Amino acid sequence: MTLKNDLIIRAALGEKVERTPVWLMRQAGRILPEYRAIRSKMGGFIELVKSPEFACEVSIQPVDILGVDAAIIFSDILVIPEAMGLSYKMVESKGPWFEKTIHNLSDIEALGIASEENYSYVLDAIKLTKKELNNRVPLIGFAGAPWTIFAYMVEGSGSKTFSQAKKFLYTQPELSHRLLQKITDSTINYLRSQINTGTDMIQLFDSWAGILSSAQYTEFALAYISKICDALKKSHPNTPITVFAKGAFFALKEMSDLNCDTIGLDWNMSIKHSRVDVGNNKTLQGNMDPCLLYSDNATIKKETEKMLFEFGPNRYIANLGHGLYPDIEKEKVIYFVETIKNYKHS
Amino acid sequence: MTLKNDLIIRAALGEKVERTPVWLMRQAGRILPEYRAIRSKMGGFIELVKSPEFACEVSIQPVDILGVDAAIIFSDILVIPEAMGLSYKMVESKGPWFEKTIHNLSDIEALGIASEENYSYVLDAIKLTKKELNNRVPLIGFAGAPWTIFAYMVEGSGSKTFSQAKKFLYTQPELSHRLLQKITDSTINYLRSQINTGTDMIQLFDSWAGILSSAQYTEFALAYISKICDALKKSHPNTPITVFAKGAFFALKEMSDLNCDTIGLDWNMSIKHSRVDVGNNKTLQGNMDPCLLYSDNATIKKETEKMLFEFGPNRYIANLGHGLYPDIEKEKVIYFVETIKNYKHS
Repeated sequence: MTLKNDLIIRAALGEKVERTPVWLMRQAGRILPEYRAIRSKMGGFIELVKSPEFACEVSIQPVDILGVDAAIIFSDILVIPEAMGLSYKMVESKGPWFEKTIHNLSDIEALGIASEENYSYVLDAIKLTKKELNNRVPLIGFAGAPWTIFAYMVEGSGSKTFSQAKKFLYTQPELSHRLLQKITDSTINYLRSQINTGTDMIQLFDSWAGILSSAQYTEFALAYISKICDALKKSHPNTPITVFAKGAFFALKEMSDLNCDTIGLDWNMSIKHSRVDVGNNKTLQGNMDPCLLYSDNATIKKETEKMLFEFGPNRYIANLGHGLYPDIEKEKVIYFVETIKNYKHS
Repeated sequence: MTLKNDLIIRAALGEKVERTPVWLMRQAGRILPEYRAIRSKMGGFIELVKSPEFACEVSIQPVDILGVDAAIIFSDILVIPEAMGLSYKMVESKGPWFEKTIHNLSDIEALGIASEENYSYVLDAIKLTKKELNNRVPLIGFAGAPWTIFAYMVEGSGSKTFSQAKKFLYTQPELSHRLLQKITDSTINYLRSQINTGTDMIQLFDSWAGILSSAQYTEFALAYISKICDALKKSHPNTPITVFAKGAFFALKEMSDLNCDTIGLDWNMSIKHSRVDVGNNKTLQGNMDPCLLYSDNATIKKETEKMLFEFGPNRYIANLGHGLYPDIEKEKVIYFVETIKNYKHS
């Protein structure tokens, strides 16, 4: 039962680590030829997410191939809307698309609160992955943060502005809170199930944090992230929680009060200022620009070591400031991971 | 020759004003039924940009209909790539699309430096608009900032990540500088021509500022914005310049050194912190979330007055933090403008 490599867990909890641990957002996916090879033989993205055998195999690939210090379960943040009753399609080169979106109270009342029977395939994938990982490294579970899930459920697809989702916040604040609470209840169930099934730590992704104003982010996003953290810490006090709110530089100070262990940073956020805002009682994660990995090795090494030096030896998990982009070469990713694993703080 | 309403010019130059002046990004366009009525009878977007009569008519509409304190010439930031030799199409509901993009040195060498004969239709539109405006309010000219233009020329279309444009910065820094310098030279010509033809002030739009890291923004974006400001101030010292770098919260302090008069803010940027970063020697412009204008009048009034109070009576031009979204109702925009014009600082 004991993890052979628990560096990430210890870094999240603020314990001393022998070296900086590393994992990468979107490490399980299209950057790996090994992933593309399996995927080309199979169906669409959502079918893959629903296949525990496939999800297990591709979740473990980056541990074997890239040498990262954690696996993350191959899944999608839109499992939750679907589990609540809003199904979606993945349109090639366009992203997710919902046939039905949320407009009014009856749409919200028609949604269920997600529970095990609605997302059992994810739990099956976690079980299988934990078994196959054989405790080599921790398994990270995740969910979208309520605002980001809300944004898709109202907008119906990705968007540069999410103006329809924001319109709903402005015109229907009470209904917005009602929907966010339902998403929050579903997410708490979902993440508790993930932890009960074996995930060793949890990350909340607030991908569209950066399009809200500071005041709206506090009211419609952070309030619900806070409820999720509190609920998980009550039921599972030892499971580290990471909150990554992309673009929410303006909220870092407030986020220091969250009942979580790690705050993710994107590459726009200054390491120095973020540490001041977040304080010393939380671990930071991030924050390299994924596009650095298009560079030559010398540039990758130089910039990565600069980042490692700035974050310092403890209370830090190395990662990118966004997910890996699909056309980044595997060899560059391996070089980035090795640079981190070989770095010694002097 | 004297402007009847020069509030915006005086606010930009830091002079005392009787009330806060206001204009709105994308005020000339789809939010006005009067615009849509003319447009539906005509061709595509690019043809409209190239029609001085159309551009004149729709540039003046918001002055008459919305009561704003300035007109902005109806045009497009992609006039410059086209004037340099890279033409584009506007694909309905997808945005701009370039058939040819920039990959290497010979692509860059094939580009021209834009000069009057390449963008004479914009100058014709400015001439006509100045005449029709009859000095009621100032006419604003504009261009995209070099990094944003570069991003389209390399990526070939809009993008959530602009990963190909950023890849070019990482892998071809010298070629990137060469291309940015050519765009800069073209933009200086273009803006000087605009001022010579009659525009009363200038705005640079760096729409994709927010996807660069702070270090890249300094090297590949601000350096060229700075060259443009210096060149314009040398030739036209009395024409106010506004720089709006959307998402570049991390660069505000550095931007205080630009040879410009006004810094635009988006709605993520805190008014208080921005004023500290920018200092007291520049005017601020912005920064309401355009989605506020989906709200009821009471909410619009409350939030707008809060913004006006926070910015204070001088060194401020009211605006949104982004362009108007096409489905915002004209009546709401008028109410926003009137709220600003009626506000009295106590």
